[in-house]
Amino acid sequence: MSTMQAARIPSAGADFEIVDLPVPDPDAHEVRVRVEACGICHSDAFVKEGTFPGLEYPRVPGHEVAGVVDAVGTDVTQWSEGDRVGVGWHGGHCFTCDACRTGDFVNCENGLVTGIHYDGGYAEYMTAPAEAVAKMPEALAAEDAAPLLCAGITTFNALRNQDLQPGDLVAVQGIGGLGHLGVQYAAAMGLEVVALSTSADKEELAHDLGASHFVDVSSTDPAEALQHQGGADLILATAPNADAITSVVGGLGRDGDLVIVAATGEAVEVPPMALIQGRKSVSGWPSGDAKDSEDTLAFSAQAEALPEIETFSLEEAGAAYDRMINNEARFRAVLTMDH
Amino acid sequence: MSTMQAARIPSAGADFEIVDLPVPDPDAHEVRVRVEACGICHSDAFVKEGTFPGLEYPRVPGHEVAGVVDAVGTDVTQWSEGDRVGVGWHGGHCFTCDACRTGDFVNCENGLVTGIHYDGGYAEYMTAPAEAVAKMPEALAAEDAAPLLCAGITTFNALRNQDLQPGDLVAVQGIGGLGHLGVQYAAAMGLEVVALSTSADKEELAHDLGASHFVDVSSTDPAEALQHQGGADLILATAPNADAITSVVGGLGRDGDLVIVAATGEAVEVPPMALIQGRKSVSGWPSGDAKDSEDTLAFSAQAEALPEIETFSLEEAGAAYDRMINNEARFRAVLTMDH
Amino acid sequence: MSTMQAARIPSAGADFEIVDLPVPDPDAHEVRVRVEACGICHSDAFVKEGTFPGLEYPRVPGHEVAGVVDAVGTDVTQWSEGDRVGVGWHGGHCFTCDACRTGDFVNCENGLVTGIHYDGGYAEYMTAPAEAVAKMPEALAAEDAAPLLCAGITTFNALRNQDLQPGDLVAVQGIGGLGHLGVQYAAAMGLEVVALSTSADKEELAHDLGASHFVDVSSTDPAEALQHQGGADLILATAPNADAITSVVGGLGRDGDLVIVAATGEAVEVPPMALIQGRKSVSGWPSGDAKDSEDTLAFSAQAEALPEIETFSLEEAGAAYDRMINNEARFRAVLTMDH
Amino acid sequence: MSTMQAARIPSAGADFEIVDLPVPDPDAHEVRVRVEACGICHSDAFVKEGTFPGLEYPRVPGHEVAGVVDAVGTDVTQWSEGDRVGVGWHGGHCFTCDACRTGDFVNCENGLVTGIHYDGGYAEYMTAPAEAVAKMPEALAAEDAAPLLCAGITTFNALRNQDLQPGDLVAVQGIGGLGHLGVQYAAAMGLEVVALSTSADKEELAHDLGASHFVDVSSTDPAEALQHQGGADLILATAPNADAITSVVGGLGRDGDLVIVAATGEAVEVPPMALIQGRKSVSGWPSGDAKDSEDTLAFSAQAEALPEIETFSLEEAGAAYDRMINNEARFRAVLTMDH
Ligand SMILES: [Zn+2]
Ligand SMILES: [Zn+2]
Ligand SMILES: [Zn+2]
Ligand SMILES: [Zn+2]
Ligand SMILES: [Zn+2]
Ligand SMILES: [Zn+2]
Ligand SMILES: [Zn+2]
Ligand SMILES: [Zn+2]
Repeated sequence: MSTMQAARIPSAGADFEIVDLPVPDPDAHEVRVRVEACGICHSDAFVKEGTFPGLEYPRVPGHEVAGVVDAVGTDVTQWSEGDRVGVGWHGGHCFTCDACRTGDFVNCENGLVTGIHYDGGYAEYMTAPAEAVAKMPEALAAEDAAPLLCAGITTFNALRNQDLQPGDLVAVQGIGGLGHLGVQYAAAMGLEVVALSTSADKEELAHDLGASHFVDVSSTDPAEALQHQGGADLILATAPNADAITSVVGGLGRDGDLVIVAATGEAVEVPPMALIQGRKSVSGWPSGDAKDSEDTLAFSAQAEALPEIETFSLEEAGAAYDRMINNEARFRAVLTMDH
Repeated sequence: MSTMQAARIPSAGADFEIVDLPVPDPDAHEVRVRVEACGICHSDAFVKEGTFPGLEYPRVPGHEVAGVVDAVGTDVTQWSEGDRVGVGWHGGHCFTCDACRTGDFVNCENGLVTGIHYDGGYAEYMTAPAEAVAKMPEALAAEDAAPLLCAGITTFNALRNQDLQPGDLVAVQGIGGLGHLGVQYAAAMGLEVVALSTSADKEELAHDLGASHFVDVSSTDPAEALQHQGGADLILATAPNADAITSVVGGLGRDGDLVIVAATGEAVEVPPMALIQGRKSVSGWPSGDAKDSEDTLAFSAQAEALPEIETFSLEEAGAAYDRMINNEARFRAVLTMDH
Repeated sequence: MSTMQAARIPSAGADFEIVDLPVPDPDAHEVRVRVEACGICHSDAFVKEGTFPGLEYPRVPGHEVAGVVDAVGTDVTQWSEGDRVGVGWHGGHCFTCDACRTGDFVNCENGLVTGIHYDGGYAEYMTAPAEAVAKMPEALAAEDAAPLLCAGITTFNALRNQDLQPGDLVAVQGIGGLGHLGVQYAAAMGLEVVALSTSADKEELAHDLGASHFVDVSSTDPAEALQHQGGADLILATAPNADAITSVVGGLGRDGDLVIVAATGEAVEVPPMALIQGRKSVSGWPSGDAKDSEDTLAFSAQAEALPEIETFSLEEAGAAYDRMINNEARFRAVLTMDH
Repeated sequence: MSTMQAARIPSAGADFEIVDLPVPDPDAHEVRVRVEACGICHSDAFVKEGTFPGLEYPRVPGHEVAGVVDAVGTDVTQWSEGDRVGVGWHGGHCFTCDACRTGDFVNCENGLVTGIHYDGGYAEYMTAPAEAVAKMPEALAAEDAAPLLCAGITTFNALRNQDLQPGDLVAVQGIGGLGHLGVQYAAAMGLEVVALSTSADKEELAHDLGASHFVDVSSTDPAEALQHQGGADLILATAPNADAITSVVGGLGRDGDLVIVAATGEAVEVPPMALIQGRKSVSGWPSGDAKDSEDTLAFSAQAEALPEIETFSLEEAGAAYDRMINNEARFRAVLTMDH
């Protein structure tokens, strides 16, 4: 039996351990992926800290997985050995619940999360249900594609599913792992982009990424700044801070929408009057399913919208995770595997 | 010079006074309406109490006006003497601001409000800009049409502009002046309606109005009750109480929207996680313009969706207003004029 | 081995034969349905005449099937013995093609058609893939539900997926098997309905079904009649006659859509100028999948929108088919089974 | 009284004559524009040949007008002397018809067309209703902006109002005056663009404009080529040739739309079956109003999407018109004025 290296969490709150594990075999409906790169995401803290309900340990995290199909289960027809693929947060669905029957797989009542319900991409190999797998275009390097499977799809899918027109004014709040991709996507969609950041030193970067405007929210009220531009048609909130999100509601223009992709449980405060005048809304957007991932990868390749990454070896998983969790990575930390 | 009777507020906070005033002449762009009925709305408190910025006194309130065109200004081509018409909250627009240039007249930067910026319908006659006037169908009595110009249009227009399909589950929160119309409209649109009320004794009424389900929120958690039905596709919040609105967010289903028409300045509290999972939103909706009023009246006639009203004479304006402000009217108080 | 009665076509162009067949056993992913009623549809002519590509004989037609789940395959979790269900035209999908991956099951590249790719409902029992099965509400009798699985879903699904608002003017062209349901659905959605028919004697029926207007197109130009009403927001073309469809294009109002559900291979002729002025469109709509069927049945029950039917025994399948094909049935012929 | 030079058509079918005319004074609701550039459009043939109903002669054509406000009427508040502006095909509206009351100004029942109902831009000065005027950004030269007021707005507005997502496959049929702008806009919106042309020698240009694919339809069937790419989400038909348009219907993918901006009275032939399978549509799109022009100009500046032009002096109007009508201009002929 062949073995592989993996970085796993032995129990809630414990540190990463580098272990040798058997290379897993795919079940009938699964594929096995030889992992080439795996992004490190803030949501990996669910595994590290044990804050996701029902987690079982030990667990290998990782839901930003880019690699190559290495073996396919007996019932799998759509994938073949050698296919370049990615696996994101959405790790599988049941096909039979009400959500699945309308094609809303991301809201599957029995949905699986990669690296949470089953071992993820902090390893040389992993298996995943065939429906959780996305084609990866030749034009993308694995380490660039990896963060697109979570940070990318979340912002791309949120943006493309809004009721926007080219030329609309779109603000991206937070220029970090998600936001630096959101700015690129929005610009490539023909939107006029305002970057909102607490770091004045990100102004040049924001312009390089495609923003037409930059607001340093540590010194300028973002709502006023946006109203000065005529009001935002959309604000994409990528920073998980309820107060910060509350502070931009006033920057929406007529029919403007504040779309939150930053998962936080704290409450955003919204006075109805502020929504009624001008018909505004506040909404949320989750990431997406495998087809959405595929669309994200294809659009990223087409628009040459790539993440800024720092790469680490699998053995450095713990250090890389720490960099991410301390908000030091610029902007996504990615594990790359030596096979 | 002929005179007319009117009920007006002499100064902020003062009581209504019944006065004789000259019958007003329309300017070039205005029409004169012989008022037959005028609904009393909670927003008339802006005039009574002086809480609308820039109000000038004395002022005749009233923005739920049903009557007959009696004279037209020299530049008015679209209205003729004898036309049955209504005038609602939206009292005119500039045609030249950015909002007007896209047809979004209700958000006109220079918009006028009937009975606020100029004298309204608590009188035998009033004038209004031609663009603020809506055709009233023969099938509607003036006293029934009057409340539709504000309570009606607000709920009808909010409902018809959502992304709903027939059969969708729609909750109407608050079965009062707005809500008792909202239930009727929703049912006539083929929606499955849940009435949410603090008054257990409104259950039978709710069913008569077209609701399939009734939830007494004084004894049952509305969010749980809605989830038990599969989650609401839409919740229409008609009661201006931020806590009550906050309490129903959890009742939204996948892609569900909470649409607030109840103007309140207190903040509704919404945790992003509750919006992200299931792609939900909270939004606001103002009333509408004259064409929207026309559509409301036409649909009300078609669907036989009428308000429950109590009628009063113009001399009784003060007493009628008190009934409304004390929440005693069932469900709309309407002044009817003797000519 | 138990047997059952079935009406099948032995070869292309041959007559129906009533035969005894083994009761089929469901495969792992299938359910077996004890058929209670099966509607007869014009598309059954594909089987009778052999005009559907790749048909194999003998074949039992029938894709408007209402019955009760009688046995479930080993992998089926969502259905249980005793569930009241329906099976329509959409007879199964692959879950893995591009269309399926976006939830567009009706356009599955490997889709199956009930009663075409496998034996259908002209029999006491049939099997179907679990994903092709729709819940049937208690409120609907099987013989009423049967035609809703094809004639019903087609018109309901076409109507509910358009960009319509309550009060919009909708014309239903053809008051037959599809049209008499389309009128009912449109009325129940709060639309203002115009019935267009070649038969003057259907006027009273049209009004009973919920139409506000009736146009006898044998004596009145339908385009002119619709323009007289202000132009149609939607025309639903249910009669498979390209000339007739061409004749109504001119009846569209601003932003009006002509939606064709009547499958014909003859060309409709549309001058671009007629579409450009007023931003109009001509489009097609297929039926829908099992979830759409479920929604159709639920809405039909809610709105009490039921087909007019003539019932026949299974032995009478040939005679019933002839009545349908000769356009004599009013409006849907339905086989009901004695068990 | 000051005079100006103009190129006008004395009577239907006659040649251009260069004349001196009084500089016109704006009415109360009009502005006067000092014309800097005016594009020559195929629709100017309406004036040249007298094929627009109700034309009065002599008439100065020209509806692609870029210039500077020079004088404003007494009732005009939104424009001032010195404003850089454009005037397109949509030459004014009534504000009171049903279309205008919903903001659908382009479909005004009493709409005016620039250079048809009143003298247009083939002159040193012209007047236009204030509502027909669009702001022109500093970043655009007048001669570049001129063709955007008709060829530009038509393609931009058609594209931005479709239900498209970035990355969608969009074919532009015809790489001429409209199409070469359509390709640029589509690319700048993040769409994947296929250029369809009868001229093999436009391949390099098409790629320079932003197309990812080029199909020489003189040698390759466009429907097959598009299906080979997975089917078009949108085809924008810019060449006024009904047979050519008919030939691409088969290239639509699931939910694909064929949007025609090429005004022709010949009929496009569409078999319903081809629309039903895959839920496809054929629709038309007119140009847009002044606000749409403004958005077009702003987006063109933002995306640096500019027309290829040939410039001519006003005296050369006849020769320039001939070049356009003989399809020799590459791609838009523009008159530039010396003041
Ligand atoms: Zn599921
Ligand atoms: Zn993640
Ligand atoms: Zn305005
Ligand atoms: Zn009111
Ligand atoms: Zn059928
Ligand atoms: Zn499929
Ligand atoms: Zn033109
Ligand atoms: Zn008009």
